[in-house]
Amino acid sequence: MQNKSIISPEIEEVLKLPNKDEEIRKLFLDLHPREIFTLCEDLKPQQNAQIVIALKSPLGIEFFQQFKTKRQRGIFRHFSKEWMADILEDMAPDERTDFIKTLSKEQTGQVLPLIAQAERNDIKKLLQYKEGTAGSILTTEYAFLSQDITASKALNQLRKQAFDRETIYYVYVIDNERKLLGFISLKDILISNGNKLIKDIMHLNIINAHIDDDKEQVAKKLADYDLLAIPIVDTENRLIGIVTVDDVVDIIEQEHTEDIYKHGAAGDYVDYMGSPPRLIAKHRIIWLLVLVAMGFVSGMVMEKYAYQLQAVVALTFFIPLLCGSGGNAGTQSSTVVIRGLATGEIQIRDVLKIFLKELSIGGIVGLAMGILAAFRALVLNKDPLLAITVGSAMIATVIVATTLGAVLPLLFKKMKLDPALMSGPFIASIVDIVSLLVYFRIAVLVFA
Amino acid sequence: MQNKSIISPEIEEVLKLPNKDEEIRKLFLDLHPREIFTLCEDLKPQQNAQIVIALKSPLGIEFFQQFKTKRQRGIFRHFSKEWMADILEDMAPDERTDFIKTLSKEQTGQVLPLIAQAERNDIKKLLQYKEGTAGSILTTEYAFLSQDITASKALNQLRKQAFDRETIYYVYVIDNERKLLGFISLKDILISNGNKLIKDIMHLNIINAHIDDDKEQVAKKLADYDLLAIPIVDTENRLIGIVTVDDVVDIIEQEHTEDIYKHGAAGDYVDYMGSPPRLIAKHRIIWLLVLVAMGFVSGMVMEKYAYQLQAVVALTFFIPLLCGSGGNAGTQSSTVVIRGLATGEIQIRDVLKIFLKELSIGGIVGLAMGILAAFRALVLNKDPLLAITVGSAMIATVIVATTLGAVLPLLFKKMKLDPALMSGPFIASIVDIVSLLVYFRIAVLVFA
Repeated sequence: MQNKSIISPEIEEVLKLPNKDEEIRKLFLDLHPREIFTLCEDLKPQQNAQIVIALKSPLGIEFFQQFKTKRQRGIFRHFSKEWMADILEDMAPDERTDFIKTLSKEQTGQVLPLIAQAERNDIKKLLQYKEGTAGSILTTEYAFLSQDITASKALNQLRKQAFDRETIYYVYVIDNERKLLGFISLKDILISNGNKLIKDIMHLNIINAHIDDDKEQVAKKLADYDLLAIPIVDTENRLIGIVTVDDVVDIIEQEHTEDIYKHGAAGDYVDYMGSPPRLIAKHRIIWLLVLVAMGFVSGMVMEKYAYQLQAVVALTFFIPLLCGSGGNAGTQSSTVVIRGLATGEIQIRDVLKIFLKELSIGGIVGLAMGILAAFRALVLNKDPLLAITVGSAMIATVIVATTLGAVLPLLFKKMKLDPALMSGPFIASIVDIVSLLVYFRIAVLVFA
Repeated sequence: MQNKSIISPEIEEVLKLPNKDEEIRKLFLDLHPREIFTLCEDLKPQQNAQIVIALKSPLGIEFFQQFKTKRQRGIFRHFSKEWMADILEDMAPDERTDFIKTLSKEQTGQVLPLIAQAERNDIKKLLQYKEGTAGSILTTEYAFLSQDITASKALNQLRKQAFDRETIYYVYVIDNERKLLGFISLKDILISNGNKLIKDIMHLNIINAHIDDDKEQVAKKLADYDLLAIPIVDTENRLIGIVTVDDVVDIIEQEHTEDIYKHGAAGDYVDYMGSPPRLIAKHRIIWLLVLVAMGFVSGMVMEKYAYQLQAVVALTFFIPLLCGSGGNAGTQSSTVVIRGLATGEIQIRDVLKIFLKELSIGGIVGLAMGILAAFRALVLNKDPLLAITVGSAMIATVIVATTLGAVLPLLFKKMKLDPALMSGPFIASIVDIVSLLVYFRIAVLVFA
């Protein structure tokens, strides 16, 4: 990466030159498209459009593909109709499908007729697959062979295919109806005797996925099997396309975002910077109102103990501490169990073992927290009865919280519900109710 | 995947046969090592050891490598000394380093002398790289070429290297001192004129990483640049090894676990099923005690308003609801901002835009929540003054919570602290204090 020294203002200067296309090519031609992106991502959409045009296909297209679809749309607006068509023709089919989905019907209607018939059919076919399925992320630019040719002839065919395929390292063997017969890697072909027939050296046991499979499952399969690509077939075992390893990380990162939103009860993911507050609020409000409704129960518990609260007002001072501590301890154990279920580290059948483990953990941390809270009541409030009440309520609350936090996600999983629904905020709301019940029961006993 | 019909009891029967090695090979020889793993993962360690031996190298080793290091250790115990040495010699260097780290000094001392000198040196070298660096995850089995040979000669050399290299699709051009001169893909070689010299067709702009680089950064770079492998060099630009794309997903998943633990204030990751409660409690307790100390402040706020609490005891009933709702709203916005900072969707410079956005969001959701809470006070407590107090305190609390939840992680990032520290539980504790202050101020005004 020798060109790290190029900076945005320099590029902006170059873009003002009369021979800018030539100068831009000189600057960027040896760079990886990602490096060009790193240097240019902060430029204006119009300037990036100029760079795409200067770099031409394929480097310009590869550079364009580095942007997220929303920013691609901004750059795309600055192209002529002809350039729009050129770019759509040359983009990788999977990237292209993603991008076209973000265009308005009007824009698509203007540009599609300018594109070659074959590409147009490909676009239409890929657009019809449901969002979130393998079909929606596949590329049709895969390398393929027929089974009756020799290894050395296969090598020659792959040389020719190399220019417009996503990868030639994984090759799929198909018949005249595109039915998937076998799989072979370029390495297999290279190390084989050149006279051997493909059908005699190909693998018959093919790890594949179906067009309707969930894209996260497909990504996980590709990763588990350490593949560079996975073939996607329809119900008749016809090869529709492939999903390549470079898409896996994006899919996993997207899933990661969804997971984290669930942990924070933040609703479904929406484009944060690009959406109006009203839309974001709509996504968040459902969970908040559910949690408010759960909070009403806490109030009802307290109403039952109004007499005690009036008699010993200092009892009130510890309510936020107790509820908060229980919520935090429960959030910890639910976090660990929800994540463990997702990675496979924890199984439903471990429920008893987990319950006992959290019982011990809750005992240990609860004891420390209880002593600390009792100490505070003793020193600041100078009330031994209060200290006993607060300390023992804390221990009990924390033990209940850690075990509930661990067991509820397991229960949800068992009931085929999403265990992540039992994340921090929900556990905290349930624990609030339990904490108050425990606290007042103990208070009634101690102050009786 | 034709062999899906094989089930564990069947395999256990086969393992009892006198000619079990032969039968196991018949059953599994056409399968991907991951498929064999899926079929056998629930068997006993001893049975899996028998399967490794029956399948021999390389398939047996590949099967063995599918297990997590902890379970590998369990299987390993059932091998003879000679088999232990064989397995260590044949494992992929990166997998092997991970595995050896989990063995006791005694075990390593017994097995290492049985391993060939070259492999032993390799093991020792890889073991010395610091945990968490590129050095700790690299493999030394890369394909390489010298720059002065022709493309067709290079192809022949790669044919020979193919058998024991992690990949031959990415090839590194090095000099006599192993200094990295260039990079070339097998595709580049294949489509080149066979008489051309490697130095004339190789890429000089090499995307690489340093042995001391953070492994997560290396994984991210590999993914951003859509590479199949990335070369790892030392300070003298000598090629030490490569990190391949199949390791990227594991590293990202591990990072994901760490992120989620931070969101739940659950401390550092520890092997949950394998660690005693005492150890897990130790990891969780620090944050809990910090949060208890923060909870003390809530108590102090309430003590200041003891008179109001005694006069209008119904004020108490809404404390858990208010604190909880503020915590939940703040958790939502902090979740979104922390994740946005991690993916790059949100930048520190957007702070004002985010503040204004969360102000609006807080206003919208706060209004809905405030109306709901006031309605409850009106209907169940039949107290209009209380309804006004609770409703307006809810609105104010939620607005403060959403903006604090969004701004505090940005502030932490700005101060070069980990923004994830400002996750749910911490925001909730801070918001508790603010909620109470707001609530009582309003109560004093309304009930004056």
